[in-house]
Amino acid sequence: MDGEGRLALLLLLFMFSLLSRVSDSHPHSSAIRAASNETVKRASDTVAEVAAYADVAKRIIELAVFGAAQNRSYKRLADFADTIGSRVSGSPNLDMAIKYMFSVMKQDGLDVHLEPVKIPHWVRGTESAEMIEPRVKNLAVLGLGSSVGTPPEGIEAEVLVVQSFEELKCRASEATGKIVVFNQPFISYGETVAYRAYGASEAAKLGAVATLIRSVTPYSINSPHTGWQDYQDGVKRIPTACITVEDAELMWRFSQRKQKIVVRLKMGAKTLPDADSFNTVAEIRGWQHPEQVVLLSGHLDSWDVGQGAMDDGGGAMISWEALSLIKDLGLRPRRTLRTVLWTAEEQGGVGAQQYFNLHKVNMSNFDLVMESDLGTFAPVGLRFTGSDAAQKVMEEVVKLLAPINTTKLELNGEGTDISPWMQAGVPGASLHVADSRYFWFHHSEGDTMTVQNPRDMDLCSALWAVVAYVVADLQDMLPR
Amino acid sequence: MDGEGRLALLLLLFMFSLLSRVSDSHPHSSAIRAASNETVKRASDTVAEVAAYADVAKRIIELAVFGAAQNRSYKRLADFADTIGSRVSGSPNLDMAIKYMFSVMKQDGLDVHLEPVKIPHWVRGTESAEMIEPRVKNLAVLGLGSSVGTPPEGIEAEVLVVQSFEELKCRASEATGKIVVFNQPFISYGETVAYRAYGASEAAKLGAVATLIRSVTPYSINSPHTGWQDYQDGVKRIPTACITVEDAELMWRFSQRKQKIVVRLKMGAKTLPDADSFNTVAEIRGWQHPEQVVLLSGHLDSWDVGQGAMDDGGGAMISWEALSLIKDLGLRPRRTLRTVLWTAEEQGGVGAQQYFNLHKVNMSNFDLVMESDLGTFAPVGLRFTGSDAAQKVMEEVVKLLAPINTTKLELNGEGTDISPWMQAGVPGASLHVADSRYFWFHHSEGDTMTVQNPRDMDLCSALWAVVAYVVADLQDMLPR
Repeated sequence: MDGEGRLALLLLLFMFSLLSRVSDSHPHSSAIRAASNETVKRASDTVAEVAAYADVAKRIIELAVFGAAQNRSYKRLADFADTIGSRVSGSPNLDMAIKYMFSVMKQDGLDVHLEPVKIPHWVRGTESAEMIEPRVKNLAVLGLGSSVGTPPEGIEAEVLVVQSFEELKCRASEATGKIVVFNQPFISYGETVAYRAYGASEAAKLGAVATLIRSVTPYSINSPHTGWQDYQDGVKRIPTACITVEDAELMWRFSQRKQKIVVRLKMGAKTLPDADSFNTVAEIRGWQHPEQVVLLSGHLDSWDVGQGAMDDGGGAMISWEALSLIKDLGLRPRRTLRTVLWTAEEQGGVGAQQYFNLHKVNMSNFDLVMESDLGTFAPVGLRFTGSDAAQKVMEEVVKLLAPINTTKLELNGEGTDISPWMQAGVPGASLHVADSRYFWFHHSEGDTMTVQNPRDMDLCSALWAVVAYVVADLQDMLPR
Repeated sequence: MDGEGRLALLLLLFMFSLLSRVSDSHPHSSAIRAASNETVKRASDTVAEVAAYADVAKRIIELAVFGAAQNRSYKRLADFADTIGSRVSGSPNLDMAIKYMFSVMKQDGLDVHLEPVKIPHWVRGTESAEMIEPRVKNLAVLGLGSSVGTPPEGIEAEVLVVQSFEELKCRASEATGKIVVFNQPFISYGETVAYRAYGASEAAKLGAVATLIRSVTPYSINSPHTGWQDYQDGVKRIPTACITVEDAELMWRFSQRKQKIVVRLKMGAKTLPDADSFNTVAEIRGWQHPEQVVLLSGHLDSWDVGQGAMDDGGGAMISWEALSLIKDLGLRPRRTLRTVLWTAEEQGGVGAQQYFNLHKVNMSNFDLVMESDLGTFAPVGLRFTGSDAAQKVMEEVVKLLAPINTTKLELNGEGTDISPWMQAGVPGASLHVADSRYFWFHHSEGDTMTVQNPRDMDLCSALWAVVAYVVADLQDMLPR
């Protein structure tokens, strides 16, 4: 999109936003209030109070899994992801995605508005990597977010292959002028991602001219994975990209045989000025305490490969679907249910951080923050972070999920985008799903609708909706 | 390699071949014969005769799995596949592979010779596919072996997506001028491969201008798979390629929504005149009936993607390793053990067919033909085709594999390259391995050393060596 196009979009979105804030009436408020009153209970008796939601929980689950809403979140995700494709921070696709979601959630009868955020704008450009010695071989490669590019003619250099930061330190004297290849084994995403995040700066400190990192995945079919990387202040910024597990292992074997390896890397990557974007916010306003909020969320941006169906189209869609299910049943909770579709999560939770900075002044009104960003496969349970007292309430809430057999409350709610709230003491919850293949597809061309399943998404949506609705409708906010 | 280079190679290989046939002496023949005599037994009592090989079977297994040969077939495969890479029919890499194997098997002390074969020479050229409508998206693509190319400017046409040949017939009137996309579900390789093999001609009969076939795999990380396809005589030859599961499903969803799809396909594929190649043959000649043969085999050619480590580097290496193990133990059976590394299997078993045509005159001397071409993962059992009487013998032979828990004799030995022999009544055996992921990597960039495992290959080698040695050393050939 050109500059004028972007400006027009911004104006349009701003107008939509104004309209949405003005029209604050709920045509079916009374019906909604009546439904909510079905579940009035004594605040002093949490167990009984929560248990009284069994019927409404069943109705939500019925609707999502067997009723009119069956397959809906999957279909919504397919329509969205197929139409727009990947949505990297700063791209026209991300603008389109925000516009699309604004429009469809508005059509769905939700209160929708946009909140502006300045976001990073890194562009991949053309890129390639080729092994020249000991034999010529094309290397599948994905430059890493925030990486600098190479000169147009590329960087051609001998390779030093290491398996760890420790080995790199031991072989520091060999790194000067080399392309350092990290062939670290996959332990877990949380642990192994350090190589992707810090490999470039660690190698640059020793005089390396570029780094190629084994993709952070337990499984590969020649699949490179991209992701964010962090240059350290005061360290030379060298180009960095991920290669496949297979090619990292190949170069490791060559190096074990003392064979000289030479690689030519070309990357057209660059960072443009920060772009305009938005967090997309949709609400069902609470009838009793509209200022109090249960927040559901997923992020709308993705990497620039695949469709971003799994990361995090699914999380965004179930956070919309949860509101739709509640609306369809004519329910309206005491507190506001707010779905936020974050922007620029992949660039370090930029949209979410901005949202926190703007809204933390009202922190005492945030009842529960929820994030789904680890897949919407078959749900296993709810992860939760909060006080012991809050945990006791949540243990009762997840019992309502007996019809879908996900009554497990686990510790440690997680997610880049809700962590500032949790760190500040707001209760937080995230979705734990069954599929261990998440990191097979993560940040790769394999993140498409093919990995999604309609029934799994129905179950995730049901869980998400039940938890959000019940917490938002209890007499009291969750204890801190 | 240029014309002169190829000529020089041919001459060199021919000379090696002559030398290998001339030097037919076995420096350690007497030791080998002595070892073989350990297992003399009554021909009338098959059970006891075979059981007497328990010790030698254990020694082979010990050597392969725990002894000096541990990891050897894996290491041999890694050295080979890393050095040469993929080896498509007609390529300089295939020439190099033959030269390499000739040389290393010679160094290993085996009798090696080459048998010339004329083989197809299809070259991929540059290729790309792009969806233009309803949105622009690059499609990962692999042209299919024997496909014609497109004009240099490509073919741009509307797409007709079907899920089956039946649906194509029903919608015959819609196919004219279109690119037909087959989004057939994966049932099994044997069944589903019909779409890859015959899709182009079936669509061309209805006036289609090209076909894109969903890759024949149960699993994908945006991975296109290539393979051979068969034009029908008298039907227009249209370009044909495989796309990914993900993109086939994407276009199917678009078509279900009645969205117009337009694709631009460019393929530089062409077929050059047949090339010179060889079957590579290595032997331990039998001390009593050298003219009688137990044949072990795998094919040396691969597709032009990945390393051909799995298909069929592994099969080739265990067929070499089996001979090495037997030689290392100072064994020499009554009959000749012959390893044949076929050429141009991927083009329809061309090398194997030529071998059959040349050697079928001696068919009565072929005791057992063995092929490994479905992976060298953890072995499950031996598949066998032969008379009931032969089966009874083989049931005893596999009992010797108790130390590696693969005593199962299954029906239906299989393999493109041994099928002419089996059809002619020669007993045939193939390896059944555990890994159901074979077709995830098959004919894709994912066919690399990363999918191989040293221990699994040791087990395969042990099984292969025990079966081949014992059958080759029994008093009698297997009954027909």
